[in-house]
Amino acid sequence: MTEHKTVLKGLEGVYVTESGVSLIDTENGALYYAGYDLRELVEHSSFEEVMFLLIHKRLPLRQEFSEFRELIRRSMELEPIHIEAIHRYARIVDVLTLLVILISLKGTGRQGGDPRDVNSAVDIVAKMGSFLSTIVRIKEGGDYVPPRSDFSYAENLLNMMNGGNYEDEHVEILDDLLIIHADHGISASTFAALVAASTLSDMYSSVAAAILALKGPLHGGASEASYEQALNIGDPAKVPAWLEATLSQKKKVMGFGHRVYKIYDPRAVVLKEIIAKYLDRMDGKVRLVYEITKALEDYGQKYLAPRGIFPNLDLWTPILYRMIGLPSDTFTALFAVSRSAGWTAHILEYWRDNRLIRPLHLYVGEYPRKYIPMELRGDS
Amino acid sequence: MTEHKTVLKGLEGVYVTESGVSLIDTENGALYYAGYDLRELVEHSSFEEVMFLLIHKRLPLRQEFSEFRELIRRSMELEPIHIEAIHRYARIVDVLTLLVILISLKGTGRQGGDPRDVNSAVDIVAKMGSFLSTIVRIKEGGDYVPPRSDFSYAENLLNMMNGGNYEDEHVEILDDLLIIHADHGISASTFAALVAASTLSDMYSSVAAAILALKGPLHGGASEASYEQALNIGDPAKVPAWLEATLSQKKKVMGFGHRVYKIYDPRAVVLKEIIAKYLDRMDGKVRLVYEITKALEDYGQKYLAPRGIFPNLDLWTPILYRMIGLPSDTFTALFAVSRSAGWTAHILEYWRDNRLIRPLHLYVGEYPRKYIPMELRGDS
Repeated sequence: MTEHKTVLKGLEGVYVTESGVSLIDTENGALYYAGYDLRELVEHSSFEEVMFLLIHKRLPLRQEFSEFRELIRRSMELEPIHIEAIHRYARIVDVLTLLVILISLKGTGRQGGDPRDVNSAVDIVAKMGSFLSTIVRIKEGGDYVPPRSDFSYAENLLNMMNGGNYEDEHVEILDDLLIIHADHGISASTFAALVAASTLSDMYSSVAAAILALKGPLHGGASEASYEQALNIGDPAKVPAWLEATLSQKKKVMGFGHRVYKIYDPRAVVLKEIIAKYLDRMDGKVRLVYEITKALEDYGQKYLAPRGIFPNLDLWTPILYRMIGLPSDTFTALFAVSRSAGWTAHILEYWRDNRLIRPLHLYVGEYPRKYIPMELRGDS
Repeated sequence: MTEHKTVLKGLEGVYVTESGVSLIDTENGALYYAGYDLRELVEHSSFEEVMFLLIHKRLPLRQEFSEFRELIRRSMELEPIHIEAIHRYARIVDVLTLLVILISLKGTGRQGGDPRDVNSAVDIVAKMGSFLSTIVRIKEGGDYVPPRSDFSYAENLLNMMNGGNYEDEHVEILDDLLIIHADHGISASTFAALVAASTLSDMYSSVAAAILALKGPLHGGASEASYEQALNIGDPAKVPAWLEATLSQKKKVMGFGHRVYKIYDPRAVVLKEIIAKYLDRMDGKVRLVYEITKALEDYGQKYLAPRGIFPNLDLWTPILYRMIGLPSDTFTALFAVSRSAGWTAHILEYWRDNRLIRPLHLYVGEYPRKYIPMELRGDS
């Protein structure tokens, strides 16, 4: 076992499982869901179909997809216990924490381990969306809006959030955003889900663990930080000076760099294409953030690309989040809603051949040490 | 990178970090906390001192320990938001889920990353104990009992749980149990905490992730299952036949086997010594469970020891849990209370040299696949 005495801190480059959910092609800058190019799915597919694809590793047939969508819509309905908890906590706890509480409530008394439990996977993704929309709605003084059976998942999210106050193009943009964030291999949050699931903790609890990992600024929190960064810069003309000062102080530039990519993040490429489509309809603060982001990309690449650091998706997402009216404290929560499709697909896949995730540590420190009674230790 | 293409499923035998919190000596069957033998600590130390030891890697001096205990006691006081949530949820959600909710509430709006944040570590362990005791108390129709400044952590737990209705020896037993479960290297729950903490998610959220992993029957749930097993057997005389039937059906015997031990679990040795001390005061159902467990150990070892499977601590803990009056649905929760000392110590230690835990997966499946529109896929 000597060859393993190396400490693999951060597990960089370490393969922890086999998976057919997604493939990140870091050489050619492409992301595939069950073999389908993300770009093609954004153009032709829907988030519901991507949910099906991630779980079943194939595209659905007409009849089964119709049943699948019906299951999603039914599962989007909230129970009184959830609506009540949202009323109680929406104004005093942050959105991700409230999602953890709401999903945990559903995990009570359950056990995990069944790789065929598609119903729980669908229930989680459906509920996550309804939770987020209802949190925003109730925080703004509104009441719970039930899901409509004639609406897509994305349209239900907007309708439940805004009670009819949204535009058709917002539905398209949200559907695209949901697809883009749906999976990305074994990210830290997905790995947290697998660690919990590997003890046969239930699927709801495993997803709650994932959200708790997504909370961190090194993971899901990056898009909110990237938005704050753009607002703080405040003016595209200030970008070059800001960037030079930030880099000379060796501070982190949000929206750049990613553990697995040493090239341009393919998700950011797709995001830029979507933004280009709606550019003429962007104005006010969103337009300003766009101009600042554009300047950040241009100047940032000049300095950072030679070091192998490229823009990632968090540089571009805030523009689209704000364009569809999402409050900035819910950016990471929308990421969680979308990624719950990937989390649940990975959990189901892992349970097909479950193995408890239980690593080791290398002990550093002296031993054995002799216990010395307090009175012989000396004072203060 | 070819040498890493092996999939290290379950991370068995993989070192993921350096740590001085505890050392598991699997060859000699010993467990050390910061170099001190568990057996010596159970005999001479207290849970509060072990908390200090795990965080600071040394025993406290008189004056600093007095301040440390004072901090623990103050931190044990509950806020109205927690008491209210316990009243609301104690009867409808399981105890671990409620602990997740209560700890998550405290994580709202926080960020992690500070290795010197001892106050949060102490607050978490203090609150976990108060949460558990108050959940039990309120479930049984009582009201919140505030912590007393003249009581130890263990005594406060019993007093807050039972409102004065406990014996001196229960305090000693509980203190021992808390010490025995305080740390055990990078167990699945500790690893879940580290994965969340590595994204710089806050300490409360990271501990919530740990509890969610502990929920699983392959990890923390084992002691409750072991107790159920003893009750189901019902009679020590039935053990040999039950064991043969169970083994011939290749079913799992609870309380036997552990990923890291191929010898007798040293914690189980300590537990047996404690049980021996109180044996003459055990009667009724606890005595029956003891007799069944004893028979399980004797016959179980005969069959399982040759295969390298030995009794673990979960075989013995239920006897002591029940002896101090803990309801069987709170066994795993008490484990969580105790282990929160280890979780927080590991988190603080990891943040000294933080590295995002972000592994890879080996993609299995075809790609690229060409998207086919629904109408060309055929029906049903």
